[in-house]
Amino acid sequence: MSQQLIFTDSPALELDRIAGDISSTGRIFILTDDHTASLVLPRLAAESCVARQAAVITIPSGDVNKSLDSLARIWDGLVEGGATRRSLMINLGGGMVTDIGGFAASTFKRGIRFVNMPTTLLAAVDASVGGKTGINFHGLKNEIGVFSQADAVIISTVFFDTLPVEELLSGYGEMLKHGLLESLDAFRKLMAYDITARDMKALLPILEDNVGVKRRVVEEDPTEKGLRKALNLGHTPGHAFESWAMHRRQPIPHGYAVAFGVFVDMILSHMLYGFDSGVLQQYAVTLRNLYGTLPITCDDYDALIDYMRHDKKNVSGADINFSLLASPGHIRLDSIVPEEQIRQALDIFRDLVQ
Amino acid sequence: MSQQLIFTDSPALELDRIAGDISSTGRIFILTDDHTASLVLPRLAAESCVARQAAVITIPSGDVNKSLDSLARIWDGLVEGGATRRSLMINLGGGMVTDIGGFAASTFKRGIRFVNMPTTLLAAVDASVGGKTGINFHGLKNEIGVFSQADAVIISTVFFDTLPVEELLSGYGEMLKHGLLESLDAFRKLMAYDITARDMKALLPILEDNVGVKRRVVEEDPTEKGLRKALNLGHTPGHAFESWAMHRRQPIPHGYAVAFGVFVDMILSHMLYGFDSGVLQQYAVTLRNLYGTLPITCDDYDALIDYMRHDKKNVSGADINFSLLASPGHIRLDSIVPEEQIRQALDIFRDLVQ
Repeated sequence: MSQQLIFTDSPALELDRIAGDISSTGRIFILTDDHTASLVLPRLAAESCVARQAAVITIPSGDVNKSLDSLARIWDGLVEGGATRRSLMINLGGGMVTDIGGFAASTFKRGIRFVNMPTTLLAAVDASVGGKTGINFHGLKNEIGVFSQADAVIISTVFFDTLPVEELLSGYGEMLKHGLLESLDAFRKLMAYDITARDMKALLPILEDNVGVKRRVVEEDPTEKGLRKALNLGHTPGHAFESWAMHRRQPIPHGYAVAFGVFVDMILSHMLYGFDSGVLQQYAVTLRNLYGTLPITCDDYDALIDYMRHDKKNVSGADINFSLLASPGHIRLDSIVPEEQIRQALDIFRDLVQ
Repeated sequence: MSQQLIFTDSPALELDRIAGDISSTGRIFILTDDHTASLVLPRLAAESCVARQAAVITIPSGDVNKSLDSLARIWDGLVEGGATRRSLMINLGGGMVTDIGGFAASTFKRGIRFVNMPTTLLAAVDASVGGKTGINFHGLKNEIGVFSQADAVIISTVFFDTLPVEELLSGYGEMLKHGLLESLDAFRKLMAYDITARDMKALLPILEDNVGVKRRVVEEDPTEKGLRKALNLGHTPGHAFESWAMHRRQPIPHGYAVAFGVFVDMILSHMLYGFDSGVLQQYAVTLRNLYGTLPITCDDYDALIDYMRHDKKNVSGADINFSLLASPGHIRLDSIVPEEQIRQALDIFRDLVQ
């Protein structure tokens, strides 16, 4: 199923147009978090009739609140606001809001329509598109959820102008991954773009190309039976880095972990499939400049490999499964890599980025 | 999407075969309620290796427990039992278990496979087939859920031999509805069958034909955009009777309410579309013999009409929407009936069944 992806400098106008197109005869709801409610919602409401008239449901911000409690609170808000099967929900916020909001909408009266309006670059590139919805459960990320596409995703960089640079870099990490999945040319263009310059106007067309990569992959394989696993490039080591950093109580943004994880996967791709070492070296420079270093030592290898082994992408407990590349644009899914080679890759990783 | 519907006298063997076919590499779970856990599960486990080896999750029985609390308890059980994306869940019980179990499975890790094994006639005819899953929320029936088909439904009448006659009659009410949707011939054959004789061997092929009606409707319209509304025959007045009886603290089984509701819809069908009065009279006799009377008076009309108006099938608040018939097998969806005609139909209803 194809979903409407709208890239625009006028998100308020597009929201009013989309809400009219969907011609919802039920009440319209906006779901947002307290942070976005104060920073972004007033700007949107100033220009959008739909936003002004909608019932607003606010949940506390932060991934820790992507919980069953917040979910019940959203369902409550829908019941109390008189939502019907024809109601429409607008998810306005980062990935936490689009994830939980998409799940709440997809399960309310067995599914009402919803539109995502990502307010962070990471959500625009990743969470808001592709139909993965859900909540965390018992400390397990995205343990409960469904695959369900938003009716439309309205992506505008005007929401990003107040984001701290760390948030932009986090989104850029996922963008780099998409560039690599696309082609060498796309990857090089992306590396040549300076995200830290905060040029939101220039970002919009780049984002459109970049999200297009994800869209095409998801359209071919919405429920992750095969090709969609390509989007896991960088994520097996990335999730391990994220968990490792969390365990040290020095959490790193998701996109940072992915940017580092992509590098590990590039090294493995070089070892297994002869991925070009020139591209690898070039990426190492970008990585150091933008994301700094990740202070892992060989004492951390056991823990990192353990995290990789327990990644939910691994269907059996023993093997560790990676999405790798023969070259930019040429994907090698389901690459099982022996522990010894992972250790070697981590050695090279430390050599090149520390 | 077509789902495997298996009618069998050997449910244990079929379960072992199906579980093998699905070739789940993850652990197998059985969800059941405490009532079924003591009455049916031991019989199944005596003959099925799969049932003996499965992890059992038990929830308290009764529609009041088709709740968010029970849902969280099932998800807990899956996490604690080490369920993976390749796990399989067997929902063993009445409609309450297949509804909540289907929802829990469809949302765990964005969906694991599940098989329904209905242990009541009503669940076999209605809940276990067709992919409606969900829970009640804030006193609203099935307010939260998704459309999600079981990978297989194993239907066996051997489970029904200990059911009280009221449970058999409740299921038979939905069967009569399916007969009417099929053809005059199917409806007459069904009325000629004596459900109270408890001949479980004879019931199986009748059930197979009957569930086939629902299956065909659902295959054409899985998410109830159109044709599937045919299955709501009898349900607009039926739900009103159910709510009315509940309010008087003398609840009636769902299938009884449907059997009475079908009669109201037949009367409306006669008034609006000339539905054959001979069939109507014949049904009135069956109804009185099997289900007795429903002691409504004209003082109850306002309340009944109010319940009908607030049925969730009604998309706008004012109109009351019925699924009616021009004749057996010829459906008239989305029939809007004025209040005055509903009152007349209730008068005729009282004349004929009281």
